[in-house]
Amino acid sequence: MISAHAGDFVWRAGGAIALAAHRGGRAKVVCLSYGERGESAKAWRAGHTLDEIKAIRREEAEHAAAALGAEIEFLDAGDYPLVETPELVDRLVRVYRESEPDVVLTHPLADPYNGDHPAAARMALQARVLAQAIGYDAPGEPLGAPPVFFFEPHQPEQCDFKPDVLLDITPVFEAKRKAMECLPAQQHMWDYYTDLAVRRGVQLKRNAGPNLGLAHDTRAEAFMRLYPQVTDTLR
Amino acid sequence: MISAHAGDFVWRAGGAIALAAHRGGRAKVVCLSYGERGESAKAWRAGHTLDEIKAIRREEAEHAAAALGAEIEFLDAGDYPLVETPELVDRLVRVYRESEPDVVLTHPLADPYNGDHPAAARMALQARVLAQAIGYDAPGEPLGAPPVFFFEPHQPEQCDFKPDVLLDITPVFEAKRKAMECLPAQQHMWDYYTDLAVRRGVQLKRNAGPNLGLAHDTRAEAFMRLYPQVTDTLR
Amino acid sequence: MISAHAGDFVWRAGGAIALAAHRGGRAKVVCLSYGERGESAKAWRAGHTLDEIKAIRREEAEHAAAALGAEIEFLDAGDYPLVETPELVDRLVRVYRESEPDVVLTHPLADPYNGDHPAAARMALQARVLAQAIGYDAPGEPLGAPPVFFFEPHQPEQCDFKPDVLLDITPVFEAKRKAMECLPAQQHMWDYYTDLAVRRGVQLKRNAGPNLGLAHDTRAEAFMRLYPQVTDTLR
Amino acid sequence: MISAHAGDFVWRAGGAIALAAHRGGRAKVVCLSYGERGESAKAWRAGHTLDEIKAIRREEAEHAAAALGAEIEFLDAGDYPLVETPELVDRLVRVYRESEPDVVLTHPLADPYNGDHPAAARMALQARVLAQAIGYDAPGEPLGAPPVFFFEPHQPEQCDFKPDVLLDITPVFEAKRKAMECLPAQQHMWDYYTDLAVRRGVQLKRNAGPNLGLAHDTRAEAFMRLYPQVTDTLR
Amino acid sequence: MISAHAGDFVWRAGGAIALAAHRGGRAKVVCLSYGERGESAKAWRAGHTLDEIKAIRREEAEHAAAALGAEIEFLDAGDYPLVETPELVDRLVRVYRESEPDVVLTHPLADPYNGDHPAAARMALQARVLAQAIGYDAPGEPLGAPPVFFFEPHQPEQCDFKPDVLLDITPVFEAKRKAMECLPAQQHMWDYYTDLAVRRGVQLKRNAGPNLGLAHDTRAEAFMRLYPQVTDTLR
Amino acid sequence: MISAHAGDFVWRAGGAIALAAHRGGRAKVVCLSYGERGESAKAWRAGHTLDEIKAIRREEAEHAAAALGAEIEFLDAGDYPLVETPELVDRLVRVYRESEPDVVLTHPLADPYNGDHPAAARMALQARVLAQAIGYDAPGEPLGAPPVFFFEPHQPEQCDFKPDVLLDITPVFEAKRKAMECLPAQQHMWDYYTDLAVRRGVQLKRNAGPNLGLAHDTRAEAFMRLYPQVTDTLR
Repeated sequence: MISAHAGDFVWRAGGAIALAAHRGGRAKVVCLSYGERGESAKAWRAGHTLDEIKAIRREEAEHAAAALGAEIEFLDAGDYPLVETPELVDRLVRVYRESEPDVVLTHPLADPYNGDHPAAARMALQARVLAQAIGYDAPGEPLGAPPVFFFEPHQPEQCDFKPDVLLDITPVFEAKRKAMECLPAQQHMWDYYTDLAVRRGVQLKRNAGPNLGLAHDTRAEAFMRLYPQVTDTLR
Repeated sequence: MISAHAGDFVWRAGGAIALAAHRGGRAKVVCLSYGERGESAKAWRAGHTLDEIKAIRREEAEHAAAALGAEIEFLDAGDYPLVETPELVDRLVRVYRESEPDVVLTHPLADPYNGDHPAAARMALQARVLAQAIGYDAPGEPLGAPPVFFFEPHQPEQCDFKPDVLLDITPVFEAKRKAMECLPAQQHMWDYYTDLAVRRGVQLKRNAGPNLGLAHDTRAEAFMRLYPQVTDTLR
Repeated sequence: MISAHAGDFVWRAGGAIALAAHRGGRAKVVCLSYGERGESAKAWRAGHTLDEIKAIRREEAEHAAAALGAEIEFLDAGDYPLVETPELVDRLVRVYRESEPDVVLTHPLADPYNGDHPAAARMALQARVLAQAIGYDAPGEPLGAPPVFFFEPHQPEQCDFKPDVLLDITPVFEAKRKAMECLPAQQHMWDYYTDLAVRRGVQLKRNAGPNLGLAHDTRAEAFMRLYPQVTDTLR
Repeated sequence: MISAHAGDFVWRAGGAIALAAHRGGRAKVVCLSYGERGESAKAWRAGHTLDEIKAIRREEAEHAAAALGAEIEFLDAGDYPLVETPELVDRLVRVYRESEPDVVLTHPLADPYNGDHPAAARMALQARVLAQAIGYDAPGEPLGAPPVFFFEPHQPEQCDFKPDVLLDITPVFEAKRKAMECLPAQQHMWDYYTDLAVRRGVQLKRNAGPNLGLAHDTRAEAFMRLYPQVTDTLR
Repeated sequence: MISAHAGDFVWRAGGAIALAAHRGGRAKVVCLSYGERGESAKAWRAGHTLDEIKAIRREEAEHAAAALGAEIEFLDAGDYPLVETPELVDRLVRVYRESEPDVVLTHPLADPYNGDHPAAARMALQARVLAQAIGYDAPGEPLGAPPVFFFEPHQPEQCDFKPDVLLDITPVFEAKRKAMECLPAQQHMWDYYTDLAVRRGVQLKRNAGPNLGLAHDTRAEAFMRLYPQVTDTLR
Repeated sequence: MISAHAGDFVWRAGGAIALAAHRGGRAKVVCLSYGERGESAKAWRAGHTLDEIKAIRREEAEHAAAALGAEIEFLDAGDYPLVETPELVDRLVRVYRESEPDVVLTHPLADPYNGDHPAAARMALQARVLAQAIGYDAPGEPLGAPPVFFFEPHQPEQCDFKPDVLLDITPVFEAKRKAMECLPAQQHMWDYYTDLAVRRGVQLKRNAGPNLGLAHDTRAEAFMRLYPQVTDTLR
């Protein structure tokens, strides 16, 4: 899971991450920056320095990751703007080669409200392809072809986000809520993303096939796929 | 599975049908017409009458369905053009209510080479929505919300067909080949659709996640989804 | 404002309607059907007859329209399916010619969950164009070219709905809430559409230019335009 | 208003600029380059040096800006290619912070005929987002969220340009014509863009609502919106 | 060439028609209606009856066709609305079978300003596919697969019209102008479509490969293709 | 013809190249890299060094180009990733100015499986535009406006590839097959691209107009156009 800023993984994919951890898998979050410039308005207004803000954001994100059961790594590449570089892509290749993920989560490729998000996504995708090549000079075995899921942006329609997958996160929603509460500076988002989980849950039920026995209070997260789904059963 | 003509289900979704039957499920094919005018050029050139052609097509399609392990029903609504009517939609509602499918397969909504295909799809979709309403006057319980898959048309790019799902049909490919061979008038299609299964199989392997242990000679069929996938696991 | 069923105008455009009425304009709602078959599951399960259900829906919709300050007219054309006919289009032409609307509101043209919605929209649009022609045989003067707004469907992304306009409905939100409460059979929708108004309000504030002095609790509705905006000021 | 070359603002948005100035607002044009290499063929063929051409283009653009009532600033960043750099984006951030625009005009994001245009647009958009962040290190207050309008490119359909807004520039069209005539090297464009203003004017009248009392000789410019319109009235 | 109303062929494809005739080919225009209701406002305002208007439109269109060197046939199917019927499609099948066109011209499939245009196009396309089937019961040989070109609508961008082909009509532009002048009721269109021919001519030169020796006053018409171009040379 | 890696031109456009050479034209292939890291898995597994692999790839590509009758030039810019630089674009400008191509072939702009392909395409397109400007400082005359064709990627639908042109390569297919056989490391591709030529050939026949007298075993390649076709005849 590769995100631009330290908080993104909680709001957009906290359920998916908690679900993977909940089932005994390894879930790893890579934050390219702390979101210290672009997503910390409250701390700036409170008069904190850049280093203080980075430290605050780091600690909060660590708590949130722990609440979800995930590891977290910070690349501290700076934000607003997050600048794409070969070095940063190379670091991501090494993360892929080391962690051998079954699934990759990242931002969608369009976001007219925040240029760092698509920049993070482009690097995440480029590094994934490079990591697949035996000829790319980095430790470890060539990566397989883990499917890529784009998580939901803040204003989905303006980012050409159309849900391909509705993921039932009901069993772990409490963990997601706790992780959100680790980010006190963005308290107005707690309810916003709780409401979104309800909304996506209603849609999930509307799209579910017959006889699924879904809970009344289903909670969901939405994702887009970059590549076609590979399966041996249609459903 | 609702198709415009008697042969469509074999070429485009024979693997998916055989897979369902192979696993002990009930697979039902509904042919709105026999394809007697639009897809029987050879028989017309041989001088057969309309009724003879319909009988030939029916028998071939029955054999092909049997080879796949599927039931088949013919609505004999005429083709070229297949005309959309409320009566035909109502018949499809009754089929849905009776068979309670877990999954619906039909043609994509665009096909500049054959107007019957989108007409069949529109009726299949409209009937599915009507069958969900308790207020719709037809026997049986309201339908759930079975997912809809569009199967691959003959010229996919011109029909805005972009694979969302690649289905591994390797275990049943021999059955699909046998079903194709039940349609001798279109012998040139046997190899065409075998080649397509190879091509989609190569793409499936390219898009599969790590460690799937896929066969060297993987065969696949491609589908689009109309509605988002509902799942409790990302993969 | 032309909608397929008796309840649609409340959930999707109650704010826009109340706003027009609030400012002293005439707001008129045309319901092509009562939604008696497709959107009255609760009443069917309670054992009501078709005529009873239509009467209930009619009464509820009249109360809701009154709460918004709007006139309402029912064409009783039947739903599930709502069938497009030349006669129905002609009736809409006459409504346009009589009411000379400054603005037209209707459903978007795509909705894979409900075929009646696009059918209503197609008729609303066709009638609007016909009403503009002096040669069309109906009473009244040729219609001008009132702009058309599509209101937000239940699952916006699946209907290719991308907001072009965010309308501030804060001053009339209480009226919209009251109108929603006139529809007791769909009580679960009251909160759903209140949450949506909050969500669209947050987005409105995010997209508003500087110095607008927006309320903290801004409520909004989203619309798409069919035609380009005509203006003498960019903002 | 941020454009790639010194002439762009005249042809594509001269009316919008004159209209703003005409109403007593401040209109500011930022030219990233003089268009000295890519849009000065006549001067090159006449044997001028690079510096001479830049001086000519600068003077012409200053006259044109004056004719429209606008300020103009040249960043002299070079053209063909206009290279995107963090430094240039930073300069634009400072322009935004200083001028606090109510509205931003720039090129559309696609132009297969001229790579400098999208490059200018990308920088204009990125800088706008950066300028909104209190944590971005530049003088001035964080920017609000001024709406962004893309002006019309030379071959609109090939640039995926679909008019969202038709702006009535009739009252200032003479000023636009005078500004065009400040660019003698491109005399063939004077009539071309006059014809375009007529054409867009005809479309404006066709899309205008009733009772607008438009002039027979309406002149217009077309724009696309990047973000949804925020309004308190539908029209 | 199949058009909805009696005047369409002149404005949108008069050059293409004249070019075909000019080179010794047979050019045939089929008008589904006279445009008597929707495109004859002036005549209605002058107090003519329906029959008079149809006669006027017919005579004008005959003169225009003659000026282009084309045959013309009127199906008198009525306009505003032009209603799609199996009978009308069948008549078009017979026209295809009889005339065996090398190329088919018709309206694009989207036009939010005029529903008759897409209706004509849908019938033209459906009939073309039906005419290809040996099993379709109509006189003549099965049709080949003539390419289909959509001509340019009045507001191209709003109709999703993006030029795929720019046709040089310089040698026959005078004939097109003369044909336009056969339609005195729409005199304001003469200059509008002359300007458009200039504009498309400028674009043609901009897109032409090297060494084409194009005239300074090139005139062009724009078209979209429905099917891929088939060729033995890339250029 | 500008490609990212040393083998691309053979699989995707070998027919088009051979056809041009076959007709006495000059065909030139520019390979930005050898594909030494990303497309040489077999050689890496065999233990070769980077330099050895580049030499092998170079030799194979030279043989393949010779088999097609084309010149070939290697820019050795490195792959996986192929990095876009002003210097590389400048080298391509000089190639355009020197070779004055009538037609440009390159990769499509989207490829989620290989980032080098779009990078090559972006540079090829940018250089083409720069080479057209008299003010761009490089030897030679300004380039005309050669049409651009995108050749078919490995997974066309996932790259938004929709064929605009089907090119009949039957007369030179044997040469293409021989060129493919010059690339022994990718033997599994020989049949894959032969099957694709058959498939595109079937589609070509389906889309060809009447009376073309096409061979039973037609072979084809598919291309997209970036710019509209310029022509003096519709067909």
